[in-house]
Parts: sequence; structure tokens; C-alpha cells
Amino acid sequence: MALSMYQLTVPAFVRGLKVMSALLKKAEAHVEQHGSVPDAMISARLADDMLPLTGQVQRASDTSKMTVERLTGVPAPKFEDNETSFDQLQQRIANTIAFLESVTPEQFADSEERTIRLNFGGLPDFTGASYLLTFALPNFYFHVATAHDILRNQGVKIGKLDYLGAFA
Amino acid sequence: MALSMYQLTVPAFVRGLKVMSALLKKAEAHVEQHGSVPDAMISARLADDMLPLTGQVQRASDTSKMTVERLTGVPAPKFEDNETSFDQLQQRIANTIAFLESVTPEQFADSEERTIRLNFGGLPDFTGASYLLTFALPNFYFHVATAHDILRNQGVKIGKLDYLGAFA
Repeated sequence: MALSMYQLTVPAFVRGLKVMSALLKKAEAHVEQHGSVPDAMISARLADDMLPLTGQVQRASDTSKMTVERLTGVPAPKFEDNETSFDQLQQRIANTIAFLESVTPEQFADSEERTIRLNFGGLPDFTGASYLLTFALPNFYFHVATAHDILRNQGVKIGKLDYLGAFA
Repeated sequence: MALSMYQLTVPAFVRGLKVMSALLKKAEAHVEQHGSVPDAMISARLADDMLPLTGQVQRASDTSKMTVERLTGVPAPKFEDNETSFDQLQQRIANTIAFLESVTPEQFADSEERTIRLNFGGLPDFTGASYLLTFALPNFYFHVATAHDILRNQGVKIGKLDYLGAFA
């Protein structure tokens, strides 16, 4: 009647990142089919003060790799946030997945109780468990859902089941 | 090094629903401040084939209460999906939270291994654990994030920290 911190992070993040990769492939196909400009899709956003599609991918990557770094102490790779094409976004996702899959369940030992301190927002310290449940998972899914929402808003023919990865 | 199925569901869902309630209060204040029509906000959507704000609240309610019903066998209340005002949406959220909080950790015994079968999409059977991780949690956060995204798209002055419930 319990799930390990590893189960709750690495496979869930890898799955979500693969969903994001599949969404980006459909977005790229949509751009090609309509003869539109890839830059317009990649820089699309839902509000002036929200991140564009590129930023949603970058933050999903960061949230997943930093969650694993914070819970395990294994340093995550740094990325430059300089992606400007679908191919580069796919590479970012692939590099993130490669890091996540390099971490083992054993490296999550005692991560539930580990103290996690973030550097913004005046947030209180978390335990590993509270950090995962009240910050990391909601934050990760926010970026996958918002990437999906941006693409729907741009007219890409995807649906909820693409987000859920039901046929992945 | 493990989290219980109860921890992963009831407190996480209650927290997310309270975030949604706070977002709706800011949306209602925005409508009042701008002298605009509440119906326009409540029926706003990001794409013609996506659910409006009302639907995002209803599906977050359903996802949370049905997840708990499926994992515990405790029957969830039925709601009519007939909300047409901010007050009614707040009541829907409150009623959902009341049900969630009525279920005890003990009622989740063995829920990790329970077989879960959904009635759509040709999905394979889940275990309780895989259902929670690959369907219920992503689905729940989808609706909270999309409610947030609709409000941002409508110009409501909220931000990511409202979604995260950082100051809740």
C-alpha cells in the first residue's frame, strides 16, 4: 500500500516527457501541413506574461531533472535554454530523459525525509515527500498540460488522450 | 521511502481543489472589477473543441472523487454538471472536498494492487498504482492547470504561484 519515491518521479517524468515529445511531433506535422512558420508555433503562448511553447518544454525538463537532483543529490545536467527549433526541443527532451534514466531507485534512499529548500518565492522548507506532492508533480504536469493547451489554442488537432499518453 | 495511496490522493486532491477555488475567486473579482459578464468568463475556453472553465472544474471534481471511489470502493456522490455561476462552482468544489475528506486512510488498504477498469478509450486494465500515476494524477492536474490557463488567457491577473498554491 505504498509507492516509492523513485516510482513517483523517474517513470512518471519520463512518461510525461515522452507525451510532450509526441505532442511536439504533431505540432510540427501541423506546421508542415499548413505551410506555416515553425517559429510562430514554437513561440506561441496563451497570455503575454506566460511562457511560450519553448518555455513550457524547458521548464518541464528543468522541473523533472531538478526534482531528481534535489531528492537524490545526483547533479543534473545544465542546459542553455537556447532551443529555437522542434529538433532542438526534441533533443532537450531526449537529454533530460537520458539523465533521468541514469538514476537508480537506490539513489532515492531516504529521499522522502530529505530537507528541500528552494531559492524563490519565500517558500518554507519541504520534506522530500511534501516537495514531491505539493510542488514537483503539480509543477511538472502544469507544463505538459500548458504545452498541450497552447497547441490546442493554435488549432493543432490533438486531444486529451494525447496528453494522457493513452496510446503511447 | 514510500508514500501511501491515501497521501497521494486525498490531501493532493483537496489541495488542488482549494487552488481551483482560489483561482475562481480571483476570476470573479476580475469580472466585478471590469464590469464584465460572469457567463463569458465561466464559458471561456482555449479551443472550440475544449471544455470551458465550468467543464474544467467539473472534470477536476469528477477525477478526484472517481479516483477515490475506484481505489477504495466507497461510492462517490453524483453531481448534475449543471453549474452556471461562480457560487455554484464553489459549491461543487466544496461538496467534492467534503466527500474526499470523509474517506479514511484505512479504506485505501491494498488499493495499490486493486484492478481498475475504465469504460472508455479502449484502455487496458490498470493496477491501482499505475492508474494513479499514469492516469488519475496527470488528469487531475490537467484540469487545474487548464482552468489556470483559461483565466490567464482571459486576462485575469494570476500567476504560476497561484496555481502552485504557494500562498494558500
